[in-house]
Amino acid sequence: MADLYGYIDQNMPRFREELDHFLRIPSVSAKSEHVPDMKRTAEWLAERMRDAGLDTTIEPTKGHPIILGEYRGAGDDAPTVLVYGHYDVQPPEPLDEWTSPPFEPQVRDGRIYARGSIDDKGQLYVHVKAIEAHMKTNGSLPVNLIVLAEGEEEVGSENLMPFIEANKDRLACDYVVISDTGMVAEGVPTIGTSLRGLAYLEVHVRGPRTDLHSGSYGGAVLNPATALARIIATLHDDDWHITVPGFYDDVDPMEDYRRKLKDVPFDHEGFRKDTGAEEVGETGFDSAERLWIRPTAEVNGLLSGYTGEGAKTVLPARAMAKISFRLVPDQDPDRIAELVTNHIHEVAPQGVVVEVKNLHGGNPWRATLGSELYEAAERAMGAAWGQDVVYAGEGGSIPIVPEFERVLDAPVLLMGLGEPGANTHAPDEWMSVDAFEKGTHASARLWEELAKK
Amino acid sequence: MADLYGYIDQNMPRFREELDHFLRIPSVSAKSEHVPDMKRTAEWLAERMRDAGLDTTIEPTKGHPIILGEYRGAGDDAPTVLVYGHYDVQPPEPLDEWTSPPFEPQVRDGRIYARGSIDDKGQLYVHVKAIEAHMKTNGSLPVNLIVLAEGEEEVGSENLMPFIEANKDRLACDYVVISDTGMVAEGVPTIGTSLRGLAYLEVHVRGPRTDLHSGSYGGAVLNPATALARIIATLHDDDWHITVPGFYDDVDPMEDYRRKLKDVPFDHEGFRKDTGAEEVGETGFDSAERLWIRPTAEVNGLLSGYTGEGAKTVLPARAMAKISFRLVPDQDPDRIAELVTNHIHEVAPQGVVVEVKNLHGGNPWRATLGSELYEAAERAMGAAWGQDVVYAGEGGSIPIVPEFERVLDAPVLLMGLGEPGANTHAPDEWMSVDAFEKGTHASARLWEELAKK
Repeated sequence: MADLYGYIDQNMPRFREELDHFLRIPSVSAKSEHVPDMKRTAEWLAERMRDAGLDTTIEPTKGHPIILGEYRGAGDDAPTVLVYGHYDVQPPEPLDEWTSPPFEPQVRDGRIYARGSIDDKGQLYVHVKAIEAHMKTNGSLPVNLIVLAEGEEEVGSENLMPFIEANKDRLACDYVVISDTGMVAEGVPTIGTSLRGLAYLEVHVRGPRTDLHSGSYGGAVLNPATALARIIATLHDDDWHITVPGFYDDVDPMEDYRRKLKDVPFDHEGFRKDTGAEEVGETGFDSAERLWIRPTAEVNGLLSGYTGEGAKTVLPARAMAKISFRLVPDQDPDRIAELVTNHIHEVAPQGVVVEVKNLHGGNPWRATLGSELYEAAERAMGAAWGQDVVYAGEGGSIPIVPEFERVLDAPVLLMGLGEPGANTHAPDEWMSVDAFEKGTHASARLWEELAKK
Repeated sequence: MADLYGYIDQNMPRFREELDHFLRIPSVSAKSEHVPDMKRTAEWLAERMRDAGLDTTIEPTKGHPIILGEYRGAGDDAPTVLVYGHYDVQPPEPLDEWTSPPFEPQVRDGRIYARGSIDDKGQLYVHVKAIEAHMKTNGSLPVNLIVLAEGEEEVGSENLMPFIEANKDRLACDYVVISDTGMVAEGVPTIGTSLRGLAYLEVHVRGPRTDLHSGSYGGAVLNPATALARIIATLHDDDWHITVPGFYDDVDPMEDYRRKLKDVPFDHEGFRKDTGAEEVGETGFDSAERLWIRPTAEVNGLLSGYTGEGAKTVLPARAMAKISFRLVPDQDPDRIAELVTNHIHEVAPQGVVVEVKNLHGGNPWRATLGSELYEAAERAMGAAWGQDVVYAGEGGSIPIVPEFERVLDAPVLLMGLGEPGANTHAPDEWMSVDAFEKGTHASARLWEELAKK
């Protein structure tokens, strides 16, 4: 391992420069104006994967391309590992809340600030560089490796599943490794044990044909913004319990796991400091439980009427909300979308027309612990950080994780490198230099440990 | 009158060209970027008032200037009339809902489409042209006239009241005439009998310090957009009765007036056609009552989180609503703002910080009918339209009206020229060519009728 670590440490300045280049391309998958940036990112990353020693192809899809890098040199007796990550990023808005521009990486206090730094370019690049370290140091890898990088994770991975189904044999593997989640505390190596699912809806409320004068018409037609607010207000009761009929029907209370959560060093003070907010949520659960084993209903966006400077007395024609639900085992995203849609139509006041669009969804997931994959990860990560690994849940969603397990029949390891407060999906997103370096060490070691079986 | 009407009809093509020029200047008082346009508009209008024969000055204020035009040639025995109007306009957004650009007037089907056409440039210009007709035809006016045009009506007329108080003697008059309201039906000459007051608030809800990942944090901190929706949902009950404690305390039920409203030819079918919406409002009242004698609570704007294309899973740091209340006699805007502010703080859920800003307010008003002012107006308007005048309420607010009566101790005539569906404050605002022409006739005749007393 000394040689590998040595190579990594010696080349780290270059790795960091390459990462900066990766972060500078605004690969925002949600916006059509960024299609050329997506292409540029894919081509750049494929080139770096080739440099690292992988046979790499760019696979077109109906949306943004998939990049596939392969190393088959370890032979049939060695295990095959599939590393998954994504090169697309969330939109950077609101821009005025970034300390430095989102696509101009800047290091402050040991943190690399940029959109995509932690989600997921930095975490994905760790593995590319660990592969390079093996190939340049030993001329080979101890395991067969497949790196699969997609460009549509932030918009629902629509084209990834068909790709995996169609390439089942080529992607056949023993283990799946993903770095796209968080660490329970700064500098504490963490293996993720669960992911929440997602149902993402857009609600459109239409009232009058055009915006009206709120004096000339106010009081005699229903205001769609008021109607939308009333709809949203029916999603929770005063205990922040979700009131959509049937919503909890398939929720597994996970009582065993819930008891184990009490041992996880959840940093409540750090949570409040990072968010700048009180811990508020469903009565009867603490923050770790609310994040890892309980579903949610969140408003992601609201827009209606006049939102500029000053007082415009308009009665808006329309109101829009983006509303998403984080799901836990065994909730089904399509079923939840249906229940919520029915509920919204049920509670919508008379006088407006309501349309609910199901934008995308993903299944929840929990790890089947105790396998040699997790033992190897404990050793690799423990060595890199110099301390024991912690197991913890994850509030976010990676809809592809349960699908990987189902289609490829291989267990998934979540080796998350995002430290608390990393501002994933938010302004001032960052990845720590420390996590980037130790993550690369851990990844390089993980291939060794998995080869030992 | 034949000469006057003849002059007006002959010069109408020029009047219309001048009005088009007036409408082309984007005099949006709410936005600081339009300060130069406001100045340009004031200078242009002052020049036209001078052309018409008025001694005209531009009076600076702390905000946008006031234009004052005077004619004192009718002598001490003739009455003095103050004509009030405003040269500022509402912001034109949403721009994509205009059939033709808001500041490029276009005539379609006998309607002049442009921001400010009916509110209030077209209605104000009617009086300027009627004055010109007298001066060019007879070399004099039968009454003393003061034209006062302000540039801050759409942002609360903050600097107008101090100006009137400070110039009480110069502005002393027997009657005030205002054309800034509507007509009860197309082609039906209408005198306005009431105006609603206004209390306009902006509500800011703050949650986490920055936008957060809705997966990593959702469920454990309170979502400010959800909190805001719940606040808005508490403003009405299911009968669309406003539930803010004390809100109706000072509402005059106006039972006498309410009985008279039954005779007003309110066009329910036209209302539904113009708005493209059902008639929905407070249980126990019809649309005319809901608009003219009942107060309202309307959401004018909503903004939170991500509102662009696609699915961004953000838990927003902030949510904002613009909320305004139309008031009826004897509600007081400051008292209502205070009651609503208290209510919002009372119902705001724990876990967010709420700030309520009182942007501006205005008192409600009702006419004291039966004076010679109204008799003269009935004759002048009746002659211009060739049919009897109708008396009707007005849902909008002109906060300055009750103030004129109070400070100048002169009754106000509302000679509104806005036909139903004129899209005041909305895209595709229009004034009919017919109302512009007949309004000019009526104004010219009104000076004659008022001199007869």
